[in-house]
Amino acid sequence: MSDLQPHQYRDLLRRELAEDLGAAGDITSTAIVAPEARVRVDIVARASGRVCGLVAATAAFTLLDPRVEVEIRAADGADVEAGAVVATLAGNARAILAAERTALNLLARLSGIATATRDLVERVGNARARVTCTRKTTPGLRALEKYAVRVGGGVNHRFGLYDAVLIKDNHRDLAGGVAPAIRKARSALGHLVKLEVEVDTLDQLDEALSEGVDAVLLDNMQPRQLERAVARVGGRAVTEASGGITAETIAEVAASGVDLISVGWLTHSAPAWDVSLEYRGS
Amino acid sequence: MSDLQPHQYRDLLRRELAEDLGAAGDITSTAIVAPEARVRVDIVARASGRVCGLVAATAAFTLLDPRVEVEIRAADGADVEAGAVVATLAGNARAILAAERTALNLLARLSGIATATRDLVERVGNARARVTCTRKTTPGLRALEKYAVRVGGGVNHRFGLYDAVLIKDNHRDLAGGVAPAIRKARSALGHLVKLEVEVDTLDQLDEALSEGVDAVLLDNMQPRQLERAVARVGGRAVTEASGGITAETIAEVAASGVDLISVGWLTHSAPAWDVSLEYRGS
Amino acid sequence: MSDLQPHQYRDLLRRELAEDLGAAGDITSTAIVAPEARVRVDIVARASGRVCGLVAATAAFTLLDPRVEVEIRAADGADVEAGAVVATLAGNARAILAAERTALNLLARLSGIATATRDLVERVGNARARVTCTRKTTPGLRALEKYAVRVGGGVNHRFGLYDAVLIKDNHRDLAGGVAPAIRKARSALGHLVKLEVEVDTLDQLDEALSEGVDAVLLDNMQPRQLERAVARVGGRAVTEASGGITAETIAEVAASGVDLISVGWLTHSAPAWDVSLEYRGS
Amino acid sequence: MSDLQPHQYRDLLRRELAEDLGAAGDITSTAIVAPEARVRVDIVARASGRVCGLVAATAAFTLLDPRVEVEIRAADGADVEAGAVVATLAGNARAILAAERTALNLLARLSGIATATRDLVERVGNARARVTCTRKTTPGLRALEKYAVRVGGGVNHRFGLYDAVLIKDNHRDLAGGVAPAIRKARSALGHLVKLEVEVDTLDQLDEALSEGVDAVLLDNMQPRQLERAVARVGGRAVTEASGGITAETIAEVAASGVDLISVGWLTHSAPAWDVSLEYRGS
Amino acid sequence: MSDLQPHQYRDLLRRELAEDLGAAGDITSTAIVAPEARVRVDIVARASGRVCGLVAATAAFTLLDPRVEVEIRAADGADVEAGAVVATLAGNARAILAAERTALNLLARLSGIATATRDLVERVGNARARVTCTRKTTPGLRALEKYAVRVGGGVNHRFGLYDAVLIKDNHRDLAGGVAPAIRKARSALGHLVKLEVEVDTLDQLDEALSEGVDAVLLDNMQPRQLERAVARVGGRAVTEASGGITAETIAEVAASGVDLISVGWLTHSAPAWDVSLEYRGS
Amino acid sequence: MSDLQPHQYRDLLRRELAEDLGAAGDITSTAIVAPEARVRVDIVARASGRVCGLVAATAAFTLLDPRVEVEIRAADGADVEAGAVVATLAGNARAILAAERTALNLLARLSGIATATRDLVERVGNARARVTCTRKTTPGLRALEKYAVRVGGGVNHRFGLYDAVLIKDNHRDLAGGVAPAIRKARSALGHLVKLEVEVDTLDQLDEALSEGVDAVLLDNMQPRQLERAVARVGGRAVTEASGGITAETIAEVAASGVDLISVGWLTHSAPAWDVSLEYRGS
Repeated sequence: MSDLQPHQYRDLLRRELAEDLGAAGDITSTAIVAPEARVRVDIVARASGRVCGLVAATAAFTLLDPRVEVEIRAADGADVEAGAVVATLAGNARAILAAERTALNLLARLSGIATATRDLVERVGNARARVTCTRKTTPGLRALEKYAVRVGGGVNHRFGLYDAVLIKDNHRDLAGGVAPAIRKARSALGHLVKLEVEVDTLDQLDEALSEGVDAVLLDNMQPRQLERAVARVGGRAVTEASGGITAETIAEVAASGVDLISVGWLTHSAPAWDVSLEYRGS
Repeated sequence: MSDLQPHQYRDLLRRELAEDLGAAGDITSTAIVAPEARVRVDIVARASGRVCGLVAATAAFTLLDPRVEVEIRAADGADVEAGAVVATLAGNARAILAAERTALNLLARLSGIATATRDLVERVGNARARVTCTRKTTPGLRALEKYAVRVGGGVNHRFGLYDAVLIKDNHRDLAGGVAPAIRKARSALGHLVKLEVEVDTLDQLDEALSEGVDAVLLDNMQPRQLERAVARVGGRAVTEASGGITAETIAEVAASGVDLISVGWLTHSAPAWDVSLEYRGS
Repeated sequence: MSDLQPHQYRDLLRRELAEDLGAAGDITSTAIVAPEARVRVDIVARASGRVCGLVAATAAFTLLDPRVEVEIRAADGADVEAGAVVATLAGNARAILAAERTALNLLARLSGIATATRDLVERVGNARARVTCTRKTTPGLRALEKYAVRVGGGVNHRFGLYDAVLIKDNHRDLAGGVAPAIRKARSALGHLVKLEVEVDTLDQLDEALSEGVDAVLLDNMQPRQLERAVARVGGRAVTEASGGITAETIAEVAASGVDLISVGWLTHSAPAWDVSLEYRGS
Repeated sequence: MSDLQPHQYRDLLRRELAEDLGAAGDITSTAIVAPEARVRVDIVARASGRVCGLVAATAAFTLLDPRVEVEIRAADGADVEAGAVVATLAGNARAILAAERTALNLLARLSGIATATRDLVERVGNARARVTCTRKTTPGLRALEKYAVRVGGGVNHRFGLYDAVLIKDNHRDLAGGVAPAIRKARSALGHLVKLEVEVDTLDQLDEALSEGVDAVLLDNMQPRQLERAVARVGGRAVTEASGGITAETIAEVAASGVDLISVGWLTHSAPAWDVSLEYRGS
Repeated sequence: MSDLQPHQYRDLLRRELAEDLGAAGDITSTAIVAPEARVRVDIVARASGRVCGLVAATAAFTLLDPRVEVEIRAADGADVEAGAVVATLAGNARAILAAERTALNLLARLSGIATATRDLVERVGNARARVTCTRKTTPGLRALEKYAVRVGGGVNHRFGLYDAVLIKDNHRDLAGGVAPAIRKARSALGHLVKLEVEVDTLDQLDEALSEGVDAVLLDNMQPRQLERAVARVGGRAVTEASGGITAETIAEVAASGVDLISVGWLTHSAPAWDVSLEYRGS
Repeated sequence: MSDLQPHQYRDLLRRELAEDLGAAGDITSTAIVAPEARVRVDIVARASGRVCGLVAATAAFTLLDPRVEVEIRAADGADVEAGAVVATLAGNARAILAAERTALNLLARLSGIATATRDLVERVGNARARVTCTRKTTPGLRALEKYAVRVGGGVNHRFGLYDAVLIKDNHRDLAGGVAPAIRKARSALGHLVKLEVEVDTLDQLDEALSEGVDAVLLDNMQPRQLERAVARVGGRAVTEASGGITAETIAEVAASGVDLISVGWLTHSAPAWDVSLEYRGS
């Protein structure tokens, strides 16, 4: 399942380890634990959820001490219950204790997003809509959080301002309308860049469709209005519903027939997964 | 209120801007908005909350273009209602649009934590307990999230593994008990390092107290048991309740008389504050 | 014309200055030129060409000494003759001499690419084809070199492996054919990612078209074959000619009716523009 | 032949990989190629040339995946014909495809410089002159490009402003003449720093020689004038010819008897070597 | 003895290697020593002293070439005589010569501090006082120098401004006295932060003690005055003597009964240990 | 006097500030000093010495808060007495207190080196010898420490392994003698690189002179032997005495007539200058 590469998380882990260890290091373990002491520990789920980022997170241990043995017991994308052991570690006790919080913080956040995404995908059920994310990500973690959305069964939206055009209300205002904005964008685009337009009304939608666009973002529309919009599009563009959609409302939104439902909450407010490290002996 | 310094967030904003702009930059605005176009915008609360990180977040705009004028209209620590304008910006339209998401992502996260902390502090009410945080922070954001806890009316726990000793169950197991762990730590400590011990039972508590410690972390105890623990301590150490405490249970925990209540949820799962940037003319 | 932002070149200039100054600094100027000496200099074209990167390159001077005055006299995109003064500088002599090579190296490279692109665009003349670049860029300079292609009148291809799908021969071999490769890609793509396929033969072209793609890269085809390919496509996809196209052959390629002509040579082998810094007094 | 060390190219490769992979990574290979698929490929010369930077360039593959096996088949400095296999790789298909462009871009540039240098050295033939480079290098690549010149049979000039004194026309103007400039420099120099002076005329040459210098740069002189200058120097200093020297004119310049011929073109405009990666099976 | 981790010195060594090797590298060894030549060398004490930082320092060799074999023959904390071999290296000659100075510079500085600390600790003898350090450390080396103090038998003071409160004269002046400063600090402190106050007089000492503090820094007091201060404290706080204490005076200071004696000289002026690398064959 | 540029110390100061401030910042000042409080302070010499690095060191204050006003009252190179005010600062109290230690640590170290160098230069008196430094510098500070040697009246030796050839005993052993080592080096050298050879005996000296070298390092020779060596050289090379030379012995060494005396102690063991920051009001 994993398409995450070490170069995508190594610097982040280094920064996080530095954040936790400071200049003095783990003064508790240094004082109490013998330099050569060994320990075996399990990483244990304390709630059910979808595992995400386990290989990345446990790299915190081997970054501190390459001799720590890491046995991954749940692949990214696996659904586990509370109590499940997702990984087992063995090695130098000081290194394992020093990297514990770094590893768990990352694992908890990514698995929290994957779990929340999976839950929304399940609520969409058999409707055609796919669940997608936004750019409302945690500073410094965008690539990882986008990955967590994929692991949760969602698809990614733009990764940044650089990889697709999304014309929003502010652009529309500055360009003097939907059509002029689209025309300006199209004349400047390379042949491999897609163009989506945010519309608030069916009139704006018509204006966008008459210019020809790859996708329309139907912003803050009620399910009934979404249905009409989808009908009006008639397959001429990808349709995306957006704006304040929650676990409670997503099924109704999906029933409108839209192709995509984007949920900012997935990356900015999904609760962390509850996971801990349990001592299993030395 | 703010004791945050630019050197604490500048690199983070640079990384976040790079994350959003990539190599191609904001291709939408570049295509649609004239290079010299100017814009006035407001940053507007879409929910009530406690503002946190506004100076830091809006530095994203001036990092891209130092000529953007930023008027801060709500100090960090201010409580605002939905609809409140917390800052007004004027300047180059491309720069403002390019930094919008970077600024809002940071502001939303920090204000979310400050708001959640404030809410818990209010629930504690007149009890002596102060609300504190943990090391379960977002990778790369610890200093900022600790600041948000302070802005919310909480106090900070350790910043990392380096600035205080906290003897946890794993250390206890490795040292062969509470007392040996404390003794080892004390003999290695400098004179400016405090020592806290996590205890799960009153027996462990007694063992810790007999060694003399600065603070005890009463882990996963029920309110009744906490009360007994506080009585047993009798002022000989700071008492901290910890473990699964929520907005629903915090008042009851506080009623036990503990000095501190730590809540990991504050920094790993507090929902982001809802805030947006609104166009006000050119 | 310029849509380049300081954050896109500042780190590069700092690295380049460090490369040239080392730990000892500019030992010649330090020995010979008084610390407070001032100088006026012109940046002068020694060949005709299209100017590109002048604001970026001259930032090398102000990075060393913010008080150096820079007067830009030719906007990016301007075509100038040998002898033209494109910028005038005044300020501390040591700073100007120390940054001279750093500034000129960047300016010469980017203007060389812009000039070469302009020349190819002129040779295409009234044909519909636009000139585009590849990922065969100089290590560390991709964003700037892509910008130089735009300044030269070209359009940009992908910026990297991350912003569009391009199925090449190796992917085809690994996937077991054009059609399976396209199907796999499409099922994994977000809705804002375009898909282009490299084809060597008309059979492969048919296979790609029957799957539906955004663009086809017609690799190493002769003009006659390109013409047939364009006809076969019939507007169902963007057509791109690629492979060994030079200034001598580009007009004939363009006559085939393709939409795009990509030329790797633009960024990996275009000769630097000849430009120097001339002393004008103190 | 290679005296290049990993610390001299590792950061560059990391930056280049980041440039090509972005946050989303190689979305084409991720979509099409199985995570565990393996591939064997050759790096193949598509033109004759002198190989340079092969160990450095292929480190891009092992940086992404340390298990990729790299067999170097042509040492740096080897002259190969079109069609030659210079290296063979085997390993994870995604890693090899993701690093392909990074590796080839570096290899093509360095081999291009080495090849161009070799060609000039051959044209100098039996004359005493050695071919040398300048500081007109690619931003960020100076150490590598200087290495390529050595691999091509040339010798290096200064690496930067810090390792030798070169008094140019601007210094002369600011110091009030050749002699005062030399005297100032000499009084400030450590005992391990050499001093070269650029002269445009025989009078300036005499002035420099009478002060005593390690080398003279004879700028933009015609072959006849160079001959006179060399005679005038009479072995009292190293003589260097510089200024607009090309493959066509270098033999004539060398015939003047100068010790060194510096050619900026080698590092700023030598065309890239043509090299590609060919699929050989899985 | 060692509680130093690689992440605490790796970046420092990389910077130091870059400082010494520059862009051209070790031009002497490259010219003279064959690429494949091997060498065996000893690191030899040229003066007696306490070894510190040997594992860290010798990592310079393996950072350049992971195949260099390092045999550590004296643990950090060992006391050795002139002539002692503290480590033996075998491997690539160029790598060992290139990293020699980097390794020795670090080893000499840290062992110098450890030796000086040991000497002071010995002079304190049976008195209760422990020797401690200050924040007067070498820029960039604080964590390592604090470690060297521990290896020398001392204990660490604050690591920075962040891990404990130390109220100095300037704070006192700005707060309007000792008592107001202490009260302000206490109300802002988290429960794991200790508080020390610098006092110059016994009156200030009384004021501090009446507020309750963890420690008092008795600044620039004569031994007789220190004795009175210690008596006055009577165990209510840790007592620290500070200010111009030298090897000559430390025993007398210790006789006053203080708990701690801080000596800035240890980290800012302790002479480097004399150590060299000796050739033992190939 | 100063030829130090901001780019040479800015990163160092940033690292040092980060080292001292950590994630929590200056918790003492934040707790005690009002955010808007202002302060005036003097930087005061507590011992006589030669000032060095004052502009660089005080940049620590303006890096934290650009509005801090810095009045430099003693140029680098000035000799001052104890009690002299070398700079006056006015501005935000928190910023000034937070940067105090960072600034003083750098100033004390560089001035310590400059003072020690000056003292040695004075002891050399009218002899021809100049005082020079070695590569035994503090990790990360080489450029600054080399500058301090110049400010002290000394001259710089090599900056690293990259800017001159110095053949030492290990090279000699590996090359099979002095002459073969010199010949190998010469054949590989560019025309702007000087060559020095370390010799222990007069025989080695003769061998070096017969090959022709720019300088000879006379290692660990007694004054009488140095005299003979200088006579033997007879002006054919620069002569440098090296090895265990101290303030006590330098005059005698200088009397031997050598051109240079190198002293490693200057940069690795010169005691820090005593300097402090004194409160002058608000």
